Amino acid sequence: MHVPHPATESLNPAEQRVRDICLAARDAARTLSTLPPKRIDAMLEEIAVQLESDAEEIFAANKLDIADAERNDLAPAMIDRLRITEKSLTVMTLGVRQVLGLPQPLGEKLRDWTRPNGIHITKVRVPIGVIAIIYESRPNVTVDAAVLCLKTGNATVLRGGKEAVHSNRALIASMQKCRLLPAGAIQLIPDTDRALVPFLCRQKELIDVIIPRGGHSLIETVVREAQVPVIKHAHGICSVFVHADANKKMAEEIILNAKVQRPSACNAIETLLVDRALAETFLGDLILKIEQAGVEIRGDETVLKYAEGCHVHPATEADWTTEFLDLTLAVRVVDGLDGALDHLARYSSKHSDCIVTEDLRTAERYLNEVDSATVYWNASTRFTDGGEFGFGAEIGISTDKLHARGPMGLEELTSYKYLIRGEGQVRR
Amino acid sequence: MHVPHPATESLNPAEQRVRDICLAARDAARTLSTLPPKRIDAMLEEIAVQLESDAEEIFAANKLDIADAERNDLAPAMIDRLRITEKSLTVMTLGVRQVLGLPQPLGEKLRDWTRPNGIHITKVRVPIGVIAIIYESRPNVTVDAAVLCLKTGNATVLRGGKEAVHSNRALIASMQKCRLLPAGAIQLIPDTDRALVPFLCRQKELIDVIIPRGGHSLIETVVREAQVPVIKHAHGICSVFVHADANKKMAEEIILNAKVQRPSACNAIETLLVDRALAETFLGDLILKIEQAGVEIRGDETVLKYAEGCHVHPATEADWTTEFLDLTLAVRVVDGLDGALDHLARYSSKHSDCIVTEDLRTAERYLNEVDSATVYWNASTRFTDGGEFGFGAEIGISTDKLHARGPMGLEELTSYKYLIRGEGQVRR
Repeated sequence: MHVPHPATESLNPAEQRVRDICLAARDAARTLSTLPPKRIDAMLEEIAVQLESDAEEIFAANKLDIADAERNDLAPAMIDRLRITEKSLTVMTLGVRQVLGLPQPLGEKLRDWTRPNGIHITKVRVPIGVIAIIYESRPNVTVDAAVLCLKTGNATVLRGGKEAVHSNRALIASMQKCRLLPAGAIQLIPDTDRALVPFLCRQKELIDVIIPRGGHSLIETVVREAQVPVIKHAHGICSVFVHADANKKMAEEIILNAKVQRPSACNAIETLLVDRALAETFLGDLILKIEQAGVEIRGDETVLKYAEGCHVHPATEADWTTEFLDLTLAVRVVDGLDGALDHLARYSSKHSDCIVTEDLRTAERYLNEVDSATVYWNASTRFTDGGEFGFGAEIGISTDKLHARGPMGLEELTSYKYLIRGEGQVRR
Repeated sequence: MHVPHPATESLNPAEQRVRDICLAARDAARTLSTLPPKRIDAMLEEIAVQLESDAEEIFAANKLDIADAERNDLAPAMIDRLRITEKSLTVMTLGVRQVLGLPQPLGEKLRDWTRPNGIHITKVRVPIGVIAIIYESRPNVTVDAAVLCLKTGNATVLRGGKEAVHSNRALIASMQKCRLLPAGAIQLIPDTDRALVPFLCRQKELIDVIIPRGGHSLIETVVREAQVPVIKHAHGICSVFVHADANKKMAEEIILNAKVQRPSACNAIETLLVDRALAETFLGDLILKIEQAGVEIRGDETVLKYAEGCHVHPATEADWTTEFLDLTLAVRVVDGLDGALDHLARYSSKHSDCIVTEDLRTAERYLNEVDSATVYWNASTRFTDGGEFGFGAEIGISTDKLHARGPMGLEELTSYKYLIRGEGQVRR
């Protein structure tokens, strides 16, 4: 914490509260970093038990948020995401126990070696320190994020949306009752004034990383304002490319799964690329099947030509960069693998892209040349997920290339340091 | 490259040049990412040969910078750093060949596993993409940085200081003559107008990471303005703590080496912490020896008391957070290990800190609890360096905790992606 308390800046009371929370988090991070992993796991067990025994308080607080949401005419889907039911609380506490059961990454020796002068260097995994999570309405993020950060020895500063403020306060109050937990290890910024987000984003002496979770406008604000490193999920413009040598039935199954199974997910596809070699023989049937699954198609000229009898809308330039998040799919005919690679170099958001082909060399070129976090050959893009990867937990999916890329599990919430043991060596 | 060409923004000609450079770098990065490592090594060899054969042009350009510097009354030390001599050019080309000889990290399989549903996941090391380096006067950085980025398959956008503009242009022009090098792989922003730095820092669709190398004001500007991830070296407030059980002779040697051998280095110490148990028996002698080495001491009250006969100045609060970068040392007496840990939690810049002790348990607690990139037991902090670590090369030292911490070698200039191979798996 270099130059830790710049006394020159004058803060308003809400800013002072944020600053105090960050200072307390910094102290808690120091304590957490010295604790044995077993002690941290005991905290997680205590949290699960405490949340269960505070169920009534949590439901009561959640009812206040739901009432506010209804009064403010929030969309029913939004209200559903806010709601904490017996079942969703059970899912939360189960989640806590799942994280508790995961292997502890802290203290792992990543590498060690001895230099010719005899100094011994060990690269060891350590917590990051203080992690700020800025997120929107879903209150389950409050528990998920705090617990993943705690498992990895980090202190958490949470800043939830105003829609879930009562629920978030109740969940945090419950977790904070745990006697083993160091003061300041899990905290919520009580004010939901949006003006505090930029202030939080500037606390570079106190926060080690900010993870924003929410819509584009939140991410944009954090990226613009942050003086602290950010790990973000920007866009999920995912795609499937059906190559000339594709197994057609497999292609259909993968496309339908990747588009329809959960269209609101970031790993669902927004774009379908079809090899020109298949335009005459396969495209029309394929479009029909996709439409029959309830998907609206926006197609380029070739698609419009070969999909007679379907209700294809003409695609605009914007359709190649739009994250529809619903049952809409932009479809383009491309000239073989190179056409697909050119399209992706220009439009992919580097999240998840898939080729369907039976040709090994084509597949290997695609895997090598597509610059996305997860590149698929003959499997649905919907597998881009910490759980599906076997990480046991996920704090989010990164579309950045530094530190963490793709699904982020426990390891991605850690840093490392070098320990150097000598016998008096000095540099010549 | 999501939403890659926002046509709405109106750019002045200098901004348009920066944008065009970044677009060309993005294309080059795509080409580089598909090349076999041997091809990249051939480019490095070509660069070394080309720089040698362009020596006269490079010296001539450098003379222009030196003349400007003399005309502008730059400090002699600054002018020395600018100068390219036969020897320093040889060091540059030797450096290129050294990087050429390093093992290629690209393509390394970091992990691979199969999920119960049969999808096979491979985590593989890949280039980051486009790396922007913003640096100050030393022209050798131009070659070093470009070559390290190239070795790891990255395109580089360089933005040097105005003092070295002729030298930088000549070095870049020489490297760009290499026929194997893809167009746009190594580029220099020709304008040295400072207003372009914030503009460059906002090119988040085109640049993957910015590495600023220079003084505090440059780093601050980049951190404040960047919408692109930054890896930085902020401060080097390094320290030695002499514990009660230290080998006194070893302590003296380490302190003198860490302070005096090269005081302008970031891994030189600025702070000395001495265990109160040693105040009466050792402190006075130690201070005398340090002063005899030409070091000015700023001491706390206890130091002032026990260093009679020495010329100790009273330390101020600011001395604990000042990077002197010269022969000045702030000295404080602390209450044992806990006193040292408290001091470091408050004042360390998390770069390099050292304990001198013969007590294993004390040393292990120090190694575990000090949150710095490199934590030393009985060795000089001056070893925090890519070369001394055996990395073979160094792009800088990171005081951040994300992605890269401590000395940054080739691996730290890479990212990873996940390749997923299936046989038609879809998510249920």
